[in-house]
Amino acid sequence: MATYKFSELPVARPSKGVERRQAYTDHIMMTIVDFSGGPRPPDPPHKHPHEQISYVAKGPINFILGEGDAQTVTRLETGDIFAVPSDALHTVELLGKTARLIDCFYPIREDFLK
Amino acid sequence: MATYKFSELPVARPSKGVERRQAYTDHIMMTIVDFSGGPRPPDPPHKHPHEQISYVAKGPINFILGEGDAQTVTRLETGDIFAVPSDALHTVELLGKTARLIDCFYPIREDFLK
Repeated sequence: MATYKFSELPVARPSKGVERRQAYTDHIMMTIVDFSGGPRPPDPPHKHPHEQISYVAKGPINFILGEGDAQTVTRLETGDIFAVPSDALHTVELLGKTARLIDCFYPIREDFLK
Repeated sequence: MATYKFSELPVARPSKGVERRQAYTDHIMMTIVDFSGGPRPPDPPHKHPHEQISYVAKGPINFILGEGDAQTVTRLETGDIFAVPSDALHTVELLGKTARLIDCFYPIREDFLK
């Protein structure tokens, strides 16, 4: 299938206040991630071997990359982009009531298919 | 650099009424494509070897895939997704005054770096 209506995509709820919808080709996966219940502290940083580029479809958020002295915190608004290198620790902080991220991964997140 | 403010991204204008901004990692490129001056007929279909997944950040649009008897036209709204297989002919039709697509490509569009 080549088109995916938002209202018809299956919904995963990986944690409280987070909904994830996804589509993928052979090599890339796109996810729509909706956050609610903000503002609230960021989830603990996580990492994965996949490269990630994300579009802030609804901000504002703080994008938090790295750890310790090397950690950076960047406020991003609707329309901005962030990138996550392979295996880099990262998380986001919900600054408003809701937020939406469009995450793109290479390779596809096999862990999201289970 | 890991973050990209929309207002600071370089702008390409590949055709009248189309603005493109982009960011990329080693294997994936994300582009923000803004269409204006609609509604108007679709540009001629094009193709590329890259896989593509796109998020409709502002619709509505018609997504047109394939050619001849196998051509499909699908109306998509804000929040919907479409995917383009490698080397498949495709185009979009601007149904409103403006539209925004978030295109994700694998591998990166070297032709966009020139």
